[in-house]
Amino acid sequence: MAVRELDASEREAALAGLPGWSYDAEARGIKRTFRFADFAEAFGFMSRVAILAEKADHHPEWFNVYNRVEILLTTHDAGGLSERDIALATAIDRFA
Amino acid sequence: MAVRELDASEREAALAGLPGWSYDAEARGIKRTFRFADFAEAFGFMSRVAILAEKADHHPEWFNVYNRVEILLTTHDAGGLSERDIALATAIDRFA
Repeated sequence: MAVRELDASEREAALAGLPGWSYDAEARGIKRTFRFADFAEAFGFMSRVAILAEKADHHPEWFNVYNRVEILLTTHDAGGLSERDIALATAIDRFA
Repeated sequence: MAVRELDASEREAALAGLPGWSYDAEARGIKRTFRFADFAEAFGFMSRVAILAEKADHHPEWFNVYNRVEILLTTHDAGGLSERDIALATAIDRFA
């Protein structure tokens, strides 16, 4: 599937449907921080995201410390934010 | 269990047994980067580390992108590197 970077208006339209996510111009992607009750809950969330990402063949850049998970989604093949990131963010939000 | 920060000579002695790990003076902890064949293998490794960490009640600060996992171990209660980090690093190395 060919992917291309979303233009500014497409990006804004997509982000309107993803409260909690913000665009990082430097990373050319969207990011969100999730907080959980503890590490086990945070890692449980990460496991669900990992399976989702593997199925989509589209992987996050993410950081975890204890109950906090920071996710950045960008599409290297597109040189920035693409529909694939929007789709993955939408799916992640469904079980966060 | 009370923990304290290792002094410089204790730290050097411990790191001599942990090739691949290096001390980060700014983060006051030790870090190592692991690379795997792909995301599934990297996340499999992370899952093993997560269970180990939860059992030890000592958790990593870590970052993953695709097949790369960067781990930082420090002990906040000790204000720096402690025996707990050395024990966790040793256990991690056993299945990396």
